[in-house]
Amino acid sequence: MAISTERADVVVVGAGISGLVAATRLAAAGHDVRVLEARDRVGGRTLNADLGDGKIVEVGGQFTGPGQYAIQRVAAELGVSTFATHDTGASLLELNGRARRWLVGRPWIGVTPTVSYLRAQRALDRMARRVPAEAPWLAPDAARWDGQTLGSWLRRHVRSPRARTLLTMAVRAVWSIEPDDVSLLHILACISAGESLRRLVSTRAGAQQDRFVGGSQRIAELLAERLPEPPRLGHPVRRIVQDGDRVTVHADGLTVSTHRVVVTAPPMLASRIDYQPALPPGRAQLLARTPQGTTLKCLAVYAEPFWRRTGLSGQVASDTGPVGAAFDNSPPDGDPGILLGFVVGGHARRLLDLPPADRRAAVLTCFARWFGAEALTPQRFLVGSWSEEEWTRGCYAGYFTPGTWTSHGPWLRRPHGRIHWAGAETATRWIGFMDGAVTAGERAAGEVCAALRAEGAVSEVAR
Amino acid sequence: MAISTERADVVVVGAGISGLVAATRLAAAGHDVRVLEARDRVGGRTLNADLGDGKIVEVGGQFTGPGQYAIQRVAAELGVSTFATHDTGASLLELNGRARRWLVGRPWIGVTPTVSYLRAQRALDRMARRVPAEAPWLAPDAARWDGQTLGSWLRRHVRSPRARTLLTMAVRAVWSIEPDDVSLLHILACISAGESLRRLVSTRAGAQQDRFVGGSQRIAELLAERLPEPPRLGHPVRRIVQDGDRVTVHADGLTVSTHRVVVTAPPMLASRIDYQPALPPGRAQLLARTPQGTTLKCLAVYAEPFWRRTGLSGQVASDTGPVGAAFDNSPPDGDPGILLGFVVGGHARRLLDLPPADRRAAVLTCFARWFGAEALTPQRFLVGSWSEEEWTRGCYAGYFTPGTWTSHGPWLRRPHGRIHWAGAETATRWIGFMDGAVTAGERAAGEVCAALRAEGAVSEVAR
Repeated sequence: MAISTERADVVVVGAGISGLVAATRLAAAGHDVRVLEARDRVGGRTLNADLGDGKIVEVGGQFTGPGQYAIQRVAAELGVSTFATHDTGASLLELNGRARRWLVGRPWIGVTPTVSYLRAQRALDRMARRVPAEAPWLAPDAARWDGQTLGSWLRRHVRSPRARTLLTMAVRAVWSIEPDDVSLLHILACISAGESLRRLVSTRAGAQQDRFVGGSQRIAELLAERLPEPPRLGHPVRRIVQDGDRVTVHADGLTVSTHRVVVTAPPMLASRIDYQPALPPGRAQLLARTPQGTTLKCLAVYAEPFWRRTGLSGQVASDTGPVGAAFDNSPPDGDPGILLGFVVGGHARRLLDLPPADRRAAVLTCFARWFGAEALTPQRFLVGSWSEEEWTRGCYAGYFTPGTWTSHGPWLRRPHGRIHWAGAETATRWIGFMDGAVTAGERAAGEVCAALRAEGAVSEVAR
Repeated sequence: MAISTERADVVVVGAGISGLVAATRLAAAGHDVRVLEARDRVGGRTLNADLGDGKIVEVGGQFTGPGQYAIQRVAAELGVSTFATHDTGASLLELNGRARRWLVGRPWIGVTPTVSYLRAQRALDRMARRVPAEAPWLAPDAARWDGQTLGSWLRRHVRSPRARTLLTMAVRAVWSIEPDDVSLLHILACISAGESLRRLVSTRAGAQQDRFVGGSQRIAELLAERLPEPPRLGHPVRRIVQDGDRVTVHADGLTVSTHRVVVTAPPMLASRIDYQPALPPGRAQLLARTPQGTTLKCLAVYAEPFWRRTGLSGQVASDTGPVGAAFDNSPPDGDPGILLGFVVGGHARRLLDLPPADRRAAVLTCFARWFGAEALTPQRFLVGSWSEEEWTRGCYAGYFTPGTWTSHGPWLRRPHGRIHWAGAETATRWIGFMDGAVTAGERAAGEVCAALRAEGAVSEVAR
């Protein structure tokens, strides 16, 4: 197989939002950038499914909300506007297989669990305010908080079992993991980077408040279209060799000789690239201790949003599962009607053991339990099974296991020679979100610009 | 580059003890086996350093003890005998920079901490007896024990700070990690697989009781010499493609078409191989949630074991570090004198940030603190920095982060099509030890023999 070798100032590995933003900034600074992407499409963890008639639905990351200035700024620059997530009508809360309407301010779960939940939420927010999102290991209680799982903290500090259940459901919905998987400090860092737990879990005034018209992947597509050089698709990067002042990036079918590299792949993928010289042990351990959440994002498409007729919003939070959180994910005009079910954390791990038909049945059974038998016969049923995707391996994002932030945190954004790190996991605001992908890409592009300027490398290569 | 393609019944990835034992068993069963090894030597995490005059010292795994029947049986078959780890004289215990002699049965750490330590040890042993090492997720309290770090358990159940310190030192020495890194259930599974915590931490009547004459790597070398086909060195495996009833193993410079594969690489390396079809998400997540410990094994060689003159055994346990545990690692005849210092866990992570000269100075400063200024001027100073080794990436072994055993444990030994899994991490006795490497290799060889017999594949290929 003949491998063509190209030259460029900078190579960006990954054509998700983080990589495309980095490439855009680097190109704007006058650098010759090559974006290499393993998949045959751009967008990374964002993906639009075409429903015909100009309608789409998002199979990957989709929500945005107050405080997510970076992704909203980029979208606005591209002419992509937002619309409100459907949030009219009653939401359902299902505990132990029993679903009831849950009107804001009128919880039926009982006073004690409600108070207990709110106190825990406040306690986590208060602790999070002491965690600098850009350096969680510097928090005054970093060692103590990093030495335990969030699950340990919940068992210790939340007396009401029902409140613990509600918090577990929130953790699953926001991070797609179980409280026992993750360092308490990591959750606090994410809360700190996302303003408050309430903001993270909420639709109205929260991180699920809005969606992008035309779908979130549109942002990546438009960024890619405007690059001087289109991303090179279908070229998974296998090896990055640094030798003197050059870096050679070996992808399937393509080799690029360059000065600087920005790797945007999530940790489980970044750890599979063969780096020469090898990654220092601190960074290798960081990647080995940052697994990714487990999500199946399931979409059932109906002729119309029939649940709205009975005054339901389509939003559900369930401890019963396998769907742990549901939304009305219809297009702005409500045509067609689309139910979105997130199967996350432990529920997702179990669902992955089933064949596709059984997964579909299990999810539609949830929808039918909440919205009636009509839910059993969608026109279409789509699943984004992100942990089965070779070039993602887990969603929404990488998370830190106990002991990792305090042992290896300083490695997160530290360049490895001429290799710089981006991707939503390296963000300091909205860690793991599309917004974090943007700021991480911008930060890495800034590092590379500064380094190239310092070296005067531009003149040599680009002229 | 021309790649030669070979054919074989079975390919074994990795020429450590686990791979070589598997290959030996497969060859004995009449199968044509090819062992592919990334390094230019056999032995994996065992390594002898030649000191001249027929003397060696072990830079990798070296100890064995009561109950380790498998490795001792294999060694005996090869004519490799054992000798007792030097254990005469007083050992030192250093707390907060103050080292004192620690005679068995006469602790000076105080009655309360001693009682507290022994109670915690008994409690862990009692819990471990309820954990089946072959399926820790089936323990009655598996979810609760897997949902917390060992650190959380220590803080909760061990009142005496000094006892907690001693237990932390034991964890570092036995697992090369910090208590906050690891699932309590994992530690219990390892204790269950190693009989008792006391056995794991002890020299006399424990896992450090004996060493192999000629060094542990001799076992691997002799196994390799007796294989019909010598291991192919310097061929890191990059990709394993399953297609119908054939498997193609792509290594640098060599491709082998085969029926079955045994992967023995530790988790951080196994996760970097490109599997087609991809690993199922459960197994991919298991590997992503099994980082490896951090160890620098430091060896200072002196004309003679001068510490013995003052009645010291050479054994030290220290909370001060960077050396956390030391041994007299001289050859059987005490010539030359060799001090072994294990820098493990957090101490190791910090030492890795220093250049080699500073690492050496830090370790020798420890030795001098304990044994006098004579220790500052060894004839030779050797370091096995296993997390910097590209083809190990962490020692002693992979460990399970919280939530991993209960979420992904059943994937540990489940074959991926025609790929079987060995290596010390997959053992059900002496998990992570050389003994575990042997039984894991034998188990995987048995799986492959049974599968090949069932398919009648032998006749097709080997005839």
